Amino acid sequence: MSIALIILAAGKGTRMESDRPKVLHRIAHAPMLWHAMRAGQTLEPARTIVVAGHEAEQVAQAAHDYAPEARVVIQEKQLGTAHAVAQAAPELDGFEGDAIVLYGDTPFISQDTLEAMARARAAHDVVVLGFEAADPGRYGRLVTEGDTLTRIVEFKDATDEERAITLCNSGVVSADAQTLMGLVSAVTNDNAAGEYYLPDIVTIARARGLSAGVVHCAEAETLGINSRAELAGAETAFQQGLRARLMADGVALQAPDTVFFAWDTAVGRDAEIEPNVIFGPGVTVESGARIRGFSHLEGAHVSRGAVVGPFARLRPGAELAEDSHVGNFVEVKNAYLGEGVKANHLTYLGDADIGDGSNIGAGTITCNYDGVFKHRTTIGKGAFIGSDTMLVAPVTVGDGAMTGSGSVITEDVAPGALALGRAKQVTKPGFATRLFDMLRAKKAKQTKG
Amino acid sequence: MSIALIILAAGKGTRMESDRPKVLHRIAHAPMLWHAMRAGQTLEPARTIVVAGHEAEQVAQAAHDYAPEARVVIQEKQLGTAHAVAQAAPELDGFEGDAIVLYGDTPFISQDTLEAMARARAAHDVVVLGFEAADPGRYGRLVTEGDTLTRIVEFKDATDEERAITLCNSGVVSADAQTLMGLVSAVTNDNAAGEYYLPDIVTIARARGLSAGVVHCAEAETLGINSRAELAGAETAFQQGLRARLMADGVALQAPDTVFFAWDTAVGRDAEIEPNVIFGPGVTVESGARIRGFSHLEGAHVSRGAVVGPFARLRPGAELAEDSHVGNFVEVKNAYLGEGVKANHLTYLGDADIGDGSNIGAGTITCNYDGVFKHRTTIGKGAFIGSDTMLVAPVTVGDGAMTGSGSVITEDVAPGALALGRAKQVTKPGFATRLFDMLRAKKAKQTKG
Amino acid sequence: MSIALIILAAGKGTRMESDRPKVLHRIAHAPMLWHAMRAGQTLEPARTIVVAGHEAEQVAQAAHDYAPEARVVIQEKQLGTAHAVAQAAPELDGFEGDAIVLYGDTPFISQDTLEAMARARAAHDVVVLGFEAADPGRYGRLVTEGDTLTRIVEFKDATDEERAITLCNSGVVSADAQTLMGLVSAVTNDNAAGEYYLPDIVTIARARGLSAGVVHCAEAETLGINSRAELAGAETAFQQGLRARLMADGVALQAPDTVFFAWDTAVGRDAEIEPNVIFGPGVTVESGARIRGFSHLEGAHVSRGAVVGPFARLRPGAELAEDSHVGNFVEVKNAYLGEGVKANHLTYLGDADIGDGSNIGAGTITCNYDGVFKHRTTIGKGAFIGSDTMLVAPVTVGDGAMTGSGSVITEDVAPGALALGRAKQVTKPGFATRLFDMLRAKKAKQTKG
Repeated sequence: MSIALIILAAGKGTRMESDRPKVLHRIAHAPMLWHAMRAGQTLEPARTIVVAGHEAEQVAQAAHDYAPEARVVIQEKQLGTAHAVAQAAPELDGFEGDAIVLYGDTPFISQDTLEAMARARAAHDVVVLGFEAADPGRYGRLVTEGDTLTRIVEFKDATDEERAITLCNSGVVSADAQTLMGLVSAVTNDNAAGEYYLPDIVTIARARGLSAGVVHCAEAETLGINSRAELAGAETAFQQGLRARLMADGVALQAPDTVFFAWDTAVGRDAEIEPNVIFGPGVTVESGARIRGFSHLEGAHVSRGAVVGPFARLRPGAELAEDSHVGNFVEVKNAYLGEGVKANHLTYLGDADIGDGSNIGAGTITCNYDGVFKHRTTIGKGAFIGSDTMLVAPVTVGDGAMTGSGSVITEDVAPGALALGRAKQVTKPGFATRLFDMLRAKKAKQTKG
Repeated sequence: MSIALIILAAGKGTRMESDRPKVLHRIAHAPMLWHAMRAGQTLEPARTIVVAGHEAEQVAQAAHDYAPEARVVIQEKQLGTAHAVAQAAPELDGFEGDAIVLYGDTPFISQDTLEAMARARAAHDVVVLGFEAADPGRYGRLVTEGDTLTRIVEFKDATDEERAITLCNSGVVSADAQTLMGLVSAVTNDNAAGEYYLPDIVTIARARGLSAGVVHCAEAETLGINSRAELAGAETAFQQGLRARLMADGVALQAPDTVFFAWDTAVGRDAEIEPNVIFGPGVTVESGARIRGFSHLEGAHVSRGAVVGPFARLRPGAELAEDSHVGNFVEVKNAYLGEGVKANHLTYLGDADIGDGSNIGAGTITCNYDGVFKHRTTIGKGAFIGSDTMLVAPVTVGDGAMTGSGSVITEDVAPGALALGRAKQVTKPGFATRLFDMLRAKKAKQTKG
Repeated sequence: MSIALIILAAGKGTRMESDRPKVLHRIAHAPMLWHAMRAGQTLEPARTIVVAGHEAEQVAQAAHDYAPEARVVIQEKQLGTAHAVAQAAPELDGFEGDAIVLYGDTPFISQDTLEAMARARAAHDVVVLGFEAADPGRYGRLVTEGDTLTRIVEFKDATDEERAITLCNSGVVSADAQTLMGLVSAVTNDNAAGEYYLPDIVTIARARGLSAGVVHCAEAETLGINSRAELAGAETAFQQGLRARLMADGVALQAPDTVFFAWDTAVGRDAEIEPNVIFGPGVTVESGARIRGFSHLEGAHVSRGAVVGPFARLRPGAELAEDSHVGNFVEVKNAYLGEGVKANHLTYLGDADIGDGSNIGAGTITCNYDGVFKHRTTIGKGAFIGSDTMLVAPVTVGDGAMTGSGSVITEDVAPGALALGRAKQVTKPGFATRLFDMLRAKKAKQTKG
């Protein structure tokens, strides 16, 4: 069965107090919209339609970043959820299969739940996702008779008896795509708010002789995000899930609550992650690697046996081969460190290739930027870069070569050669004593004056 | 109505296990004493009297740091709360208006509560602040008849019936200043502990035909701090309040529990603060700025569009203009960074002025200290400071000037000029190979030997 | 009375998903095995016998690291707890005294509890440690009559009446060593799993006319670790205990939940530890020292009045004398910093001795490694090391000497002397302007091209 996802993502999210549209606020470094789109991937959708409105360009861009084939339709005025779904009609013209409506600000619907909804369509024309609410509050209630959903009633329209119902409406709905379009086009805005409500399709469907049913999910899946505090709560919940999954897979986390993963972080068995580590997107850490405390990684790959940190920063394009070490106050960007390479202290390696077994002294800097262009540094195998070496790129240091500490290397160094760029030490006896005496006398005079 | 604050701050706080007097232990970087003084500011007090005792000099200093006009009186011996309040008498001589008694170790009384107490004085001669205790334990109980407070009974003197009362005494009291002084001077120490108890004024007041009433507040406001564990709990509660308020105002906090604000931190809407950031006092962050993880800020201003960190340290006097970048392992102290300035790696900028659009290379250091004096570095607009440049202050680098990497700049550089201080690179073919061979042979010999 | 500890440590811990044997997973930087061994130290055991199995060599190594005199026996096949205990028999040959069975994966049994068990042996031949379980689940139940333990029943063999018992078996057992060996050798594997169960000794003991009794402990003490999630939970519990104990002793922790101690960290009264600090093993911090945020300490000693961090890393052998300062992005390893020494920015001090009152400029590096050997740097008292000084060890800088910023120091500097190794500054007027013009023109061409 072909599936079309319809993802409602038009809202502004006033309570977020932000210029950024609500669905682009991030959880674990992915916009909420991506979380909704990702859940839907399990259904292998033939078509993904995002209904944008507020800041539609930004939303469209984010949708395409995740799925270039996504189709974006614009809801010019936000007249209600049924109206939003109706905007998808042109993109469903001639589409044969089911449509399922998801929400860009409801990021936690699970893949299992969506699969259950797909299966439930065998028994019902319209399938609604419901949940047993611990505190039903002002949620819409699902009125059922046995296996059948008879209607969805808004809290404010509900009788006392209906308000006693704890089975609530998540808003997620599935139906044959053309049926769904027919239903939403029949919804009216004949209510106090003057809005077109998607839940009204259940009553309309039943009036047309169609059947409606309910699939149940956990309340936590239906969590909608309306404020930054709720977003922070969702982040915590999502991080806890990531941490639990990784620990179950054999990742060592001494203090899991202090480690922040991205949605796509991959970590191997017996890798060790110390307290206070932050992962941005695009990081993979192999089995048996060790990420020490206070490290910050984005877009990096860390191989088996490598040690990172403490106080290390890996930026996009950092590629650490097996048993390499990146130590404290070291930044690596767009650079390959070969097997066993050590860069342990106070170093910047940007736009560089470093051969196996080389040792990078403390204070080494790849001078990769001339103010306009970026250039590349190449270091061979088994080289020894002395402390405080400036490698003025483009430059190459050969296998087994060495640079003297404090050198500025502007010309290539042949394999096995030693390069120095250093003024000879000159020592002036007694000079420091006289200088300090003079400075202190000046200070004493100032203090007195 | 004129108001005098009387803040009791004489206690040692034995359970803190500290040489520091209790009221100077800090919450969110402000001494508890300041929190109490700050709450009282809402009443626009005409007079603030701090009753110090233990380490009175330190307490007086802290009081004056917050409010130079504060008057400090000394309670030589700590004979009870009524005795402490009585010490304020000389400073209230001839004062017309109300006095309110607060506590230096009770930092969370809200401004709303104090305003309610001020209003309640219209109906009662003496107003006591009470709270409904979840677990009344050994708190003093407020015995009331209708709207009237008849007496305050210590737990140990209470009947079973009185112990069943859950309305408890916070200790905060308000009355006409002269009336209050008259009442406290009538309190006796005729009790087991031989102390002068402030709550006794209620009975004395009523014996004199004065009326007493109660204002209610939340129990959390009356939290007193007696141990470091309680202090840590208070810090957590206060931080949670700060975080919630900032999120409601539109500040993006991915992991609010990992961000520690100071009492006076100001952050604009849509500013983004990543996990693991510490704010010391005196920091302002404008809308749309971004503070990345593992950053530490004190006394700094970060303008719109600026990016700080990860691993950045801003110290007092750091002033970052719009769109400037301070990156990893960079420290800025008493320095102005103009618009669009970039100092992205391994740099120390102290006592410096840097013009718009300049680029500060990795490893740059302003050598601002000669062992006795501090000196200033000035860099113009659009300058390019090469990696590992030492700027030996006082020194000026002109607009659009450039320094070569690894240079020690001791003389001013004219606008548009290039300054170099660098030994020419010398390369010795084969030398590294021979050196390594020699060292390894030596090692092999040692190992064998 | 002589005591022999028998510590069962043979398990693999399949649910840990790790190549490391379960008992070597760490809590607060000590293997769980050590925690069990440490609890037993209170009994001053005459003999400690560790029963290893899975990865026995690693386990033996860890046991000997903690207690060189520990005896390790191997349980080749893991046939049950009674079988494991029986492996200790050869090491108890001729031993007169009690034996107590502990578990390498049950790290929280308290010293008080073990002392209570030792005392209880006066009344009973066999003493079993039990606990009242909040949720008894599938734990074995202790069936008692008055003061007497009549038997231990596995959950699956228990009657409904027995399942209603909430007093559960911790597995910890004490008896005369020879009696215990006799009992475990009588246990059979006549059960569904074909295992030799230690609890069966109670029934056997009673059949032989011996008495059995129960000592009670808190359920939290009996926590066994079977997964990484449980390990993380145990870490949290242990850290909370450490933090609470230190705060009670007068250590200032602004945000205790963000500070991670090692099992052996020692911190003095009125020492201050800011948020986000990580302690590895072997650290002592004296009274009144201050450890600022984002610091990482291992094997270091910090004296009274010293300030560390923010962003400081102290590695093993870092010894900071009184009032010394180690500032941001500074690493200290195997180095002594005398009284009042300041190393405040971007520095690496490894294998060094620094005299009282010396000032180490920003960017200073001890070049202690030549690719094969490590060498030592010695700095006298009151010296001034200029910024970006490379100290190429072995090298000595005398008392009151000074180095110029940007110098590479390869030869000793006499007391009071100034050493410079620096090329003279050359300034080329207009050169930067022309260079930028050229680069920008090139870029413009490329962009157009």
